[in-house]
Amino acid sequence: MEERFRRIKAFVFDVDGVLTDGGIFADLDGNLFRTFDAKDAFAMRMAAMNGFCLGAITGGRSVSITKRLLTCGFKEDDIYLGSRVKIDDFTDFCRRNNLTAEEVMYFGDDLPDIPVMKACGCGVCPADAVEEAKEAADFISGFPGGKRCVRNTLETVMKIQDKWNIDLELYKQKF
Amino acid sequence: MEERFRRIKAFVFDVDGVLTDGGIFADLDGNLFRTFDAKDAFAMRMAAMNGFCLGAITGGRSVSITKRLLTCGFKEDDIYLGSRVKIDDFTDFCRRNNLTAEEVMYFGDDLPDIPVMKACGCGVCPADAVEEAKEAADFISGFPGGKRCVRNTLETVMKIQDKWNIDLELYKQKF
Amino acid sequence: MEERFRRIKAFVFDVDGVLTDGGIFADLDGNLFRTFDAKDAFAMRMAAMNGFCLGAITGGRSVSITKRLLTCGFKEDDIYLGSRVKIDDFTDFCRRNNLTAEEVMYFGDDLPDIPVMKACGCGVCPADAVEEAKEAADFISGFPGGKRCVRNTLETVMKIQDKWNIDLELYKQKF
Amino acid sequence: MEERFRRIKAFVFDVDGVLTDGGIFADLDGNLFRTFDAKDAFAMRMAAMNGFCLGAITGGRSVSITKRLLTCGFKEDDIYLGSRVKIDDFTDFCRRNNLTAEEVMYFGDDLPDIPVMKACGCGVCPADAVEEAKEAADFISGFPGGKRCVRNTLETVMKIQDKWNIDLELYKQKF
Repeated sequence: MEERFRRIKAFVFDVDGVLTDGGIFADLDGNLFRTFDAKDAFAMRMAAMNGFCLGAITGGRSVSITKRLLTCGFKEDDIYLGSRVKIDDFTDFCRRNNLTAEEVMYFGDDLPDIPVMKACGCGVCPADAVEEAKEAADFISGFPGGKRCVRNTLETVMKIQDKWNIDLELYKQKF
Repeated sequence: MEERFRRIKAFVFDVDGVLTDGGIFADLDGNLFRTFDAKDAFAMRMAAMNGFCLGAITGGRSVSITKRLLTCGFKEDDIYLGSRVKIDDFTDFCRRNNLTAEEVMYFGDDLPDIPVMKACGCGVCPADAVEEAKEAADFISGFPGGKRCVRNTLETVMKIQDKWNIDLELYKQKF
Repeated sequence: MEERFRRIKAFVFDVDGVLTDGGIFADLDGNLFRTFDAKDAFAMRMAAMNGFCLGAITGGRSVSITKRLLTCGFKEDDIYLGSRVKIDDFTDFCRRNNLTAEEVMYFGDDLPDIPVMKACGCGVCPADAVEEAKEAADFISGFPGGKRCVRNTLETVMKIQDKWNIDLELYKQKF
Repeated sequence: MEERFRRIKAFVFDVDGVLTDGGIFADLDGNLFRTFDAKDAFAMRMAAMNGFCLGAITGGRSVSITKRLLTCGFKEDDIYLGSRVKIDDFTDFCRRNNLTAEEVMYFGDDLPDIPVMKACGCGVCPADAVEEAKEAADFISGFPGGKRCVRNTLETVMKIQDKWNIDLELYKQKF
């Protein structure tokens, strides 16, 4: 695993069940809202600050996802909303960012994520992913979606690469 | 159980405590909001794509329920809001969709659901249903309401019928 | 306990931590919102239908509480918002409804509730109440606040009194 | 520990993961919302009533945080939003309130909190803090963030100082 973790230059995330616990709040106008985790957000910002590229590929279409992720170090072009065939968006993400699939870690928890989990350099799933996703994963986090699966895994990768550096002054400038 | 599962052509759901964990968020205007599960939604879409009919019969009256379910493969006519005597709406659902009661699986978690659970082809309840609902159920899910009770059961039924087919291109067109 | 339960003619509730899990959602304008439980709501409606009087005494001031409880069989006059010395409001509730303290069951989970829990006919607290409330309680529910403490206790009282009757037609007319 | 607890004159809190469970709800406009705990709020009000100074130092920028904390006995000047180098804001808080660092208890759960946890009179973290925060803490609560870590610790400190006094009439005037 350490060898795979060493190669990673980018983190790409499914949203529902990975960056959230899968809960989707519905309003009267049909808008959908999600709850994200503060500790996950901190790790994503650390990754961005230390040179990692961040992406999201989600079936969700709510602009609230984009708004939230922009505050966590994502670039707007790297947030794919309304994704249905995720492998296509994953290929596009790699091409645009000059990354090979091997350099990307992908986090997924359900069936539409599996093709990407298999194609990428390291497929990760939360502790509460569906069975098929767990079987397809290279690494299963001990934490569930929306509750430190992302934090814990990013931290582990960055520590192995000696990049878990917290420069509060730089953090102040960037976020 | 397998025999019952084989006959099912439609899935009908109570909402609170089945498609949600029972939590109801109240705003200043008296509107009520709910949190749905992404993995449950995926299974309902798979069911709709593979020819199953979907319905909801709820005491809730919020249009937010309708808005949410329309994105999960339900037809508007098959969403009964403000239902008080659920068996009447169940009968109407069957008639309109040319289904016998035996062909319908109904998910309920509380007392108003029991007449429908007994009348339908297979009554299902989540792990955290009230005792009387558990006693009336033909099948008790290992998962609680709003957290994969629906996903897990639909997947089981569709696998037995050899209909758990994920065609991402078709998914792309339909949702 | 059965003797106490037999005398009860009214149920009065603290809100935060009893009818909710204690979580308070804060918006940009300083409004506060809560999440209620569907199964608790059902039991409160059953109680109202079967002749029990319902009241709420809360430190909270949000009109969203009133709006929610009005749909559960409460009368507006019996919902005390912004209560600080709860025993005063409890006394007012009893007087206005021609009830003796012994005829009222009160649900509380924290220190401001204790004087009422001691004064009423039966003080109840959820499984996750503070220690002092548990010590003051006549009955400690096996369920936590916002998650069936109310449902379970009301059901028990009404069954002992032979009033746990569900008349769906009447339910239809009233709610 | 008792000796440290005896010296405390002020309580300062990180917000996400301490006063909340770390969940951040995102709306369409990029606003972020949090859920606070009623029992934590009660303890903070008791502390303010009994002469303790309250402060918050958070990376969050939402005015909803300020609005909520103002109802819990905080003064607006003592709520630091958008804090990036927390030790600077902590120093400012102490100076403005004429407090030595030793007189302040600080609650944190993640890496940006550690410098303050080490500088203050007693660093506290919730049961679900990150490992590094637990190692830096003088006291680890048995309760998680957003769910009585604050209530339980404030109560313990105030009891040791013989200041856990609940004067409901005074409470009525102040809140």
